[in-house]
Amino acid sequence: MRSISLQDIESMDKLVRVQFANSLPGPKPICLVGTTDESGQHNLAPFSTVTHLGSNPAVIGMVSRPDLVDRHTLSNILATGSYTINHVHSGILEQAHQCSARYPRGSSEFSATGLTPHFEEGVLSPFVGESVFRFALKLEQTIPIAANNTILIVGRVVLVQLPDEHLGEDGSVDLNALGSLASTALDTYFQLGAPTRLPYAKNK
Amino acid sequence: MRSISLQDIESMDKLVRVQFANSLPGPKPICLVGTTDESGQHNLAPFSTVTHLGSNPAVIGMVSRPDLVDRHTLSNILATGSYTINHVHSGILEQAHQCSARYPRGSSEFSATGLTPHFEEGVLSPFVGESVFRFALKLEQTIPIAANNTILIVGRVVLVQLPDEHLGEDGSVDLNALGSLASTALDTYFQLGAPTRLPYAKNK
Repeated sequence: MRSISLQDIESMDKLVRVQFANSLPGPKPICLVGTTDESGQHNLAPFSTVTHLGSNPAVIGMVSRPDLVDRHTLSNILATGSYTINHVHSGILEQAHQCSARYPRGSSEFSATGLTPHFEEGVLSPFVGESVFRFALKLEQTIPIAANNTILIVGRVVLVQLPDEHLGEDGSVDLNALGSLASTALDTYFQLGAPTRLPYAKNK
Repeated sequence: MRSISLQDIESMDKLVRVQFANSLPGPKPICLVGTTDESGQHNLAPFSTVTHLGSNPAVIGMVSRPDLVDRHTLSNILATGSYTINHVHSGILEQAHQCSARYPRGSSEFSATGLTPHFEEGVLSPFVGESVFRFALKLEQTIPIAANNTILIVGRVVLVQLPDEHLGEDGSVDLNALGSLASTALDTYFQLGAPTRLPYAKNK
């Protein structure tokens, strides 16, 4: 085993450190977050920090850099209180990845990539029409993370959409059938192998 | 597509809702968090909320329920400021899952599951000897999440260990070679398929 110290990490070249540090959690989600600004301009951005915070109510967190450098997703969520989270499958992977490019505020990633905005009654923000597992959220709060000046965006799930046949009676969701991808670092994606489901663990 | 509303989620049976809500992020990390209490008793607990917060410094977040009901991991981290995060591979999956059982405070999940505590100089908390991608953290801060009374634990990475041959010169980590698993819900695990790595996206 090779040991990499705090000093080793600090002395890495910037891009090496970014790739390495972003790999530490291992497999991560990869979702497209859909928002709209007050003028009706849509925005779509990839996030790999989508995290379950609670089930009752269903509350989801995700992390953004601060708003200083024109973070369209964060500013749109703060302006409207609405956003959607859309799973990425292999059929839209290259378009999803392309949404990480820097587009100016007046330009929509939907137009730039050919992904289709899809709307549902009562949800201001666009879903990704091509995504087959997607949900809408209402902003609950934003929480500053002082340790490195990032922001935790906390939202309550208000609408979920997926094909009926991939939702089990026990609440399980068939991610293999849906084709939801995992990611690591900022540029690497994986399909999932067959699932192993284990029984509830008891103190034997 | 089936639509599931906020009211539908609220009216689910509790276990169905837990399974469903925990599936919303899609593929998630699965890591064992190693800690020790002030008397030297070790603890090991699975977490799927490990999240990259920043690269310079390398800062990692994870979410805990509050300390009210004897959360050993959280109380140990608060007491010592030290913890380790250890990736799970298929060779230790059943033992890792078993660590989610409720053991009393005086009982170590290492002894209960047969996993091996491993120590490195300067790190108080135990690593998992069988894990081949693992890192130690120093607590930076805990942040209450008011929306559902959970706690974000924020730590700075102080030591990383993995086999030298699986770390690329560009900082990339070969998760396939390391066998790091993904998870969903609280009971379902996946091996990763072959990676797709895409170039840095530019505004064309």
